[in-house]
Amino acid sequence: MNKLLMLSGPNLDLLGTRSPEIYGTMTLAEHVERVRVLCASSSLELTHRQSNFEGDLVEAVHNARGIADAIVINAGALTHYSWSLRDALDVFEGIKIEVHLSNPAARESFRHVSVVSGVADGTVAGFGLQSYELALRAIAALLGP
Amino acid sequence: MNKLLMLSGPNLDLLGTRSPEIYGTMTLAEHVERVRVLCASSSLELTHRQSNFEGDLVEAVHNARGIADAIVINAGALTHYSWSLRDALDVFEGIKIEVHLSNPAARESFRHVSVVSGVADGTVAGFGLQSYELALRAIAALLGP
Amino acid sequence: MNKLLMLSGPNLDLLGTRSPEIYGTMTLAEHVERVRVLCASSSLELTHRQSNFEGDLVEAVHNARGIADAIVINAGALTHYSWSLRDALDVFEGIKIEVHLSNPAARESFRHVSVVSGVADGTVAGFGLQSYELALRAIAALLGP
Amino acid sequence: MNKLLMLSGPNLDLLGTRSPEIYGTMTLAEHVERVRVLCASSSLELTHRQSNFEGDLVEAVHNARGIADAIVINAGALTHYSWSLRDALDVFEGIKIEVHLSNPAARESFRHVSVVSGVADGTVAGFGLQSYELALRAIAALLGP
Amino acid sequence: MNKLLMLSGPNLDLLGTRSPEIYGTMTLAEHVERVRVLCASSSLELTHRQSNFEGDLVEAVHNARGIADAIVINAGALTHYSWSLRDALDVFEGIKIEVHLSNPAARESFRHVSVVSGVADGTVAGFGLQSYELALRAIAALLGP
Amino acid sequence: MNKLLMLSGPNLDLLGTRSPEIYGTMTLAEHVERVRVLCASSSLELTHRQSNFEGDLVEAVHNARGIADAIVINAGALTHYSWSLRDALDVFEGIKIEVHLSNPAARESFRHVSVVSGVADGTVAGFGLQSYELALRAIAALLGP
Amino acid sequence: MNKLLMLSGPNLDLLGTRSPEIYGTMTLAEHVERVRVLCASSSLELTHRQSNFEGDLVEAVHNARGIADAIVINAGALTHYSWSLRDALDVFEGIKIEVHLSNPAARESFRHVSVVSGVADGTVAGFGLQSYELALRAIAALLGP
Amino acid sequence: MNKLLMLSGPNLDLLGTRSPEIYGTMTLAEHVERVRVLCASSSLELTHRQSNFEGDLVEAVHNARGIADAIVINAGALTHYSWSLRDALDVFEGIKIEVHLSNPAARESFRHVSVVSGVADGTVAGFGLQSYELALRAIAALLGP
Amino acid sequence: MNKLLMLSGPNLDLLGTRSPEIYGTMTLAEHVERVRVLCASSSLELTHRQSNFEGDLVEAVHNARGIADAIVINAGALTHYSWSLRDALDVFEGIKIEVHLSNPAARESFRHVSVVSGVADGTVAGFGLQSYELALRAIAALLGP
Amino acid sequence: MNKLLMLSGPNLDLLGTRSPEIYGTMTLAEHVERVRVLCASSSLELTHRQSNFEGDLVEAVHNARGIADAIVINAGALTHYSWSLRDALDVFEGIKIEVHLSNPAARESFRHVSVVSGVADGTVAGFGLQSYELALRAIAALLGP
Amino acid sequence: MNKLLMLSGPNLDLLGTRSPEIYGTMTLAEHVERVRVLCASSSLELTHRQSNFEGDLVEAVHNARGIADAIVINAGALTHYSWSLRDALDVFEGIKIEVHLSNPAARESFRHVSVVSGVADGTVAGFGLQSYELALRAIAALLGP
Amino acid sequence: MNKLLMLSGPNLDLLGTRSPEIYGTMTLAEHVERVRVLCASSSLELTHRQSNFEGDLVEAVHNARGIADAIVINAGALTHYSWSLRDALDVFEGIKIEVHLSNPAARESFRHVSVVSGVADGTVAGFGLQSYELALRAIAALLGP
Repeated sequence: MNKLLMLSGPNLDLLGTRSPEIYGTMTLAEHVERVRVLCASSSLELTHRQSNFEGDLVEAVHNARGIADAIVINAGALTHYSWSLRDALDVFEGIKIEVHLSNPAARESFRHVSVVSGVADGTVAGFGLQSYELALRAIAALLGP
Repeated sequence: MNKLLMLSGPNLDLLGTRSPEIYGTMTLAEHVERVRVLCASSSLELTHRQSNFEGDLVEAVHNARGIADAIVINAGALTHYSWSLRDALDVFEGIKIEVHLSNPAARESFRHVSVVSGVADGTVAGFGLQSYELALRAIAALLGP
Repeated sequence: MNKLLMLSGPNLDLLGTRSPEIYGTMTLAEHVERVRVLCASSSLELTHRQSNFEGDLVEAVHNARGIADAIVINAGALTHYSWSLRDALDVFEGIKIEVHLSNPAARESFRHVSVVSGVADGTVAGFGLQSYELALRAIAALLGP
Repeated sequence: MNKLLMLSGPNLDLLGTRSPEIYGTMTLAEHVERVRVLCASSSLELTHRQSNFEGDLVEAVHNARGIADAIVINAGALTHYSWSLRDALDVFEGIKIEVHLSNPAARESFRHVSVVSGVADGTVAGFGLQSYELALRAIAALLGP
Repeated sequence: MNKLLMLSGPNLDLLGTRSPEIYGTMTLAEHVERVRVLCASSSLELTHRQSNFEGDLVEAVHNARGIADAIVINAGALTHYSWSLRDALDVFEGIKIEVHLSNPAARESFRHVSVVSGVADGTVAGFGLQSYELALRAIAALLGP
Repeated sequence: MNKLLMLSGPNLDLLGTRSPEIYGTMTLAEHVERVRVLCASSSLELTHRQSNFEGDLVEAVHNARGIADAIVINAGALTHYSWSLRDALDVFEGIKIEVHLSNPAARESFRHVSVVSGVADGTVAGFGLQSYELALRAIAALLGP
Repeated sequence: MNKLLMLSGPNLDLLGTRSPEIYGTMTLAEHVERVRVLCASSSLELTHRQSNFEGDLVEAVHNARGIADAIVINAGALTHYSWSLRDALDVFEGIKIEVHLSNPAARESFRHVSVVSGVADGTVAGFGLQSYELALRAIAALLGP
Repeated sequence: MNKLLMLSGPNLDLLGTRSPEIYGTMTLAEHVERVRVLCASSSLELTHRQSNFEGDLVEAVHNARGIADAIVINAGALTHYSWSLRDALDVFEGIKIEVHLSNPAARESFRHVSVVSGVADGTVAGFGLQSYELALRAIAALLGP
Repeated sequence: MNKLLMLSGPNLDLLGTRSPEIYGTMTLAEHVERVRVLCASSSLELTHRQSNFEGDLVEAVHNARGIADAIVINAGALTHYSWSLRDALDVFEGIKIEVHLSNPAARESFRHVSVVSGVADGTVAGFGLQSYELALRAIAALLGP
Repeated sequence: MNKLLMLSGPNLDLLGTRSPEIYGTMTLAEHVERVRVLCASSSLELTHRQSNFEGDLVEAVHNARGIADAIVINAGALTHYSWSLRDALDVFEGIKIEVHLSNPAARESFRHVSVVSGVADGTVAGFGLQSYELALRAIAALLGP
Repeated sequence: MNKLLMLSGPNLDLLGTRSPEIYGTMTLAEHVERVRVLCASSSLELTHRQSNFEGDLVEAVHNARGIADAIVINAGALTHYSWSLRDALDVFEGIKIEVHLSNPAARESFRHVSVVSGVADGTVAGFGLQSYELALRAIAALLGP
Repeated sequence: MNKLLMLSGPNLDLLGTRSPEIYGTMTLAEHVERVRVLCASSSLELTHRQSNFEGDLVEAVHNARGIADAIVINAGALTHYSWSLRDALDVFEGIKIEVHLSNPAARESFRHVSVVSGVADGTVAGFGLQSYELALRAIAALLGP
């Protein structure tokens, strides 16, 4: 059974309570549950980790080496400046997908730059919590049957 | 039955014959067929248009107004400079999704800027032809049952 | 009798249906008719051409050489990147006036740069369809009695 | 009867004696007279103020509040750096039109930027003294019958 | 008894009538009165000068040399480009505090740069008329008992 | 009784021992005590948190939601690059004031940019430990009696 | 017999009538004829295509795949912004040579950047119509006997 | 007898009292007297005008037209942003020399740019009050015997 | 006996397993051991700390004040954006040496900027693990016998 | 008989031994000999000078004045920064052609800028040693029979 | 008797034959002679050195240490990029004056930047050969009687 | 016995007499002697060359090809602009180490960029003359026993 690590960066623990017109009203816990169900049906075993600490995310990526087959990451605002996270992801040999709930290109200009994208296999942005579901499907397809 | 317009920009007619290590070996026609099947199972009626002319793409978007419910667009290299296409998409009231086969952020720097993203609802990039399938699912979900 | 070529660039065929709070509700056809009446009273013979294709606009300028005495152009979003159109206008020996319905300086920053302005005799921007009327008067005055 | 304030910035008092190949040979006084005649026929009452002092222009705009219905301003070189004048115009509730005798886009690069345009309703540039006449017509139309 | 010069730059004479949602409804005169009362209780003698002329402000700073112990300045839009005012303040040996009613960092990007800040002792911004009161307290503390 | 959260970013734990010519000789603990006294007299209940970890500060802001009425933050060098902290503050519904001991505008150029300012209500900078006292007063006034 | 595709971009149809002091007085047709003669003596079969449409040029490059051995392209002003044309040329497996009649480096600054050069094998610029002859010789040498 | 206008911009009235280590201890009045003596021996009639108002300097240049044969200008900090002053000087037909007491290139970076230099005949910088004497000699030589 | 603090930033815990063609195959633990031996022979007492958390590194520097005589730091990707770490190092009074295993100048452009270098005494880069040995020698020399 | 000066800049003496995959295996001496033969058949008398010293190249250009009819220059890396060489070439009245063996536009970004191009009549780049032959032909044609 | 070193950079050996409308018709030798006469009357002993080699100029500055009292340098185009020359001048303890025959600010933009100015005591530009005479006077005054 | 070439760029001949607070008081000759001793003990044969001429340094690198095993270069200010030197070093097949006496990152901003670093194996900066000793050790280690 393939293993998936879902990583959520700073401020994502506020999901459901922050700008619901942008991010919706479902909490992160509810959403992870939903992703877990989807994973199950794709024979993917889900681990989730949210942290507001760059170092936690870096280490979560480290620990996933040799264990997880894929990472889905929404790095929050770290997306725009964390070269450390980029380096960590660069070392991870599995599939790496960048996810955003909203469409950064339609928001403030500092959100138009991602230092993480360059080492990701792909990006899914703008579909709210569904962004994760799409990323899941991409992973399932990439991992093959 | 909802209607979907799939737009393919310059050089996408070469799919299957251009840099297969990046874009794969399936032709555009084969791919459109595959998308059509997926649409059918999602009760979406597909129209596809590929053009190497910016004007054709602009007009395809115009003609879709009041007819199509959603547009999936891979604008090719026009992604990086066609403000005309952006303006056309901005006027379209339905769902608009930007799709890329490869991950532009991992390629030459001129591909890191999209003038189209700012008016799209979301983006899916980096999954080859599967990028379209993911976009399709996003549309189906956005259109609702 | 002097001859005037009125050129309308990409997306101007949507006039009357696009962002009426910015562009008003009169269609392009209605407006051209109105310009034609004004031309008649100024002894100007009007030809109008709208296109979403850069190449069409370039050729319309070419064909006007030796025939038209003046060009009024609203290049739409091509204003911001079409060096080809600029070169074509540069070659045209008659009067050249750049027109905008809205005031680009009060909109998104990519609209603050015009690559066409440098070869125009003058600019009229921000007065909706009346922008054309003002340009017409300028031409009449420049052509003299 | 509607009231119009015409403002002329630094160096415009030299009109008729400065670079006549660019600005023509008519003096500012002669021109104001001509504008006054045009105003009369449009039932507009004209006040004119030229100053080489940024502060004078700022205060002229202030004093016009609640009195003038429109302002036509050629801010001279202040166009390119006077954020104070911009702020003053921004507060004025009536119509605001930016006018230039020559076409700044066809001159030195420092003239390509206007810090005033963003708060103006529209711009007329490149038609010499006729630029004012066109602005007048725009105002008359905007004020309505 | 210590002496304080309060300087108000371009457009601040419109306080109370300009964008009350940003600047409040109290006029400059009313505000100066309130500052005067506060000064009295801090044994500070207040002089106030508002001008829309950069030169007036420069000279007010000059004249304060050897007379005033501190300057509180809200340079209005001159904040963003008046190197002359900066040079004048740089020469003043007393305390210099920059004040803004609104928070420039939350407004247009041209307001994010202050050429005056580099020679000020400190800055207070974003508290409306209270910004002055806070600046007053800072001065009182800096001047000591 | 209103609640105030005072946040101190990286390196502020060194107060009193670092560059005393810039920051003074009072320690952070002594200062917090002084702020506590002032709070008491303003009927504000103070909580203070210093951390050299971005994640701690982000979470401190999160935890203050629904509990604290205002935040006074000196983000230290995080001021210049922590978009995560900006996002956290943006979500906090209460009053947010940015404080600096020294005047960043008079120091190295990398200190001239604050990514936090844009979401703060106001800024107080340059008055050493008194900067906090001024911020306190601003908060008291904003909270009202 | 080797095959050569000669491509001429926007405004080159005006050769002989546009700025003869820069471009000379020979028309494009006359020139193509001269190139054809030269080709014959080099055992090259010439096809020529001029278009003012980016899409036409893109497709001409596509159609040349597997047929032409080399392309000589003067993209006109598209040289400076057509990433679509660059992508098309990048896919073409044969020899690609960029040609300019005038020396862009000695003209306006927007002509100093070529987005096409990076995928060309070489460049010949500044020799008027002879630029093509030189390019022809380069091709003959590259194709070998 | 030739006529010379010496113009001194903002803050130069503080000469002798401002940063004497940079500017020396001689006052502006004393210096003008010294320049007057030098002028006398060169058969130059001196007029001097210092102002902290940009408008005054602009008008002093205007009034010098047809009267003065040369202008020596130290525009103070206006050097770095007054396009109005540049335009005024550009119109003046006589000799124009830019003078600086200190060497701007060895000071803050904002002093490295002069918007006035481009329309001056020459520049003398860095020699304190002697800069004027050198400029005087240059003028005498340019005016000839 | 002098004391040395060796600091290793994010991702350096992966040494030996990450891109061995760049970083070699020795693990961080093995390397620290080797450095410890070298320290012993130089009468240096070594403390080592690796962390993926910026805050840990900042505090390690704080704690070294008054205790360690020198710091050797390889800040990993924090090198390129951690102004907090720079501030911490700036406060440390002892010797500070920046070390890199690879040569950042020969890698991606974001690695060409170090925000830490400006407060270091020196830099050693490009010699793999030997970079530390060289830094050690430099320290020994600077500390003297 | 017309005279040609061929100039070769820094590092071109390594031709044949440096990166043969880019520059080929023929030495500079062999190549000059080949150019000499071609010159003979074009009735051109060749002088060649290679130097790694900017000053030598500047003086070679000086000495060619009034003697040589044309210069073919491959300035090596001086191409990108030697304004002195540009000034020297600018003074030379004859034909000036810039030559490059490889295509700088397809290499590192610092090679995309040529400070020499602006004063050259034309450029030939990317054809290895044949670049010189093409330049020779251009010169022969420009000099006429 | 004080000693003066006059340094002339690349291409100044062409004086009198290069662009006489800018630089005049007097040769460098004639001019040096004239400067020598002036020096004599100021009790200055002149040494002159012209070179097209940066290294020669650097060494001429070195050799002047402890011997010459002042340097007058016209570095030609090296002015714009020779940081080596700047470093050499920075070490010279005597007076250093930068001289230009023409006014660089009124020419091409690459001439607007001088890397040498920052270490010079002053600059004289725009007065042709008289620029040197003025510099001489400045030196005489600075050296005192 | 391995051979080492030590190269010293412009102004390094002044070592010991230039800014001793930065560079120390030992002369270049004394230092080379010290390096020679170290080399002897590492079985390295030293050749040293100092030049203020870029061309000399370029040729010294050329001549070292096939002879020297390593180069230690302190290019002085050429570090910041000599692409010619970079190209020469790029061709050299042996070890290349960039050395600086001071720490350029802690000095003027133009010293923050090195055009040489990208082709060096490593860099040692900031340790005065000891920088060379460290580089020597690195070379010895790289060359192996």
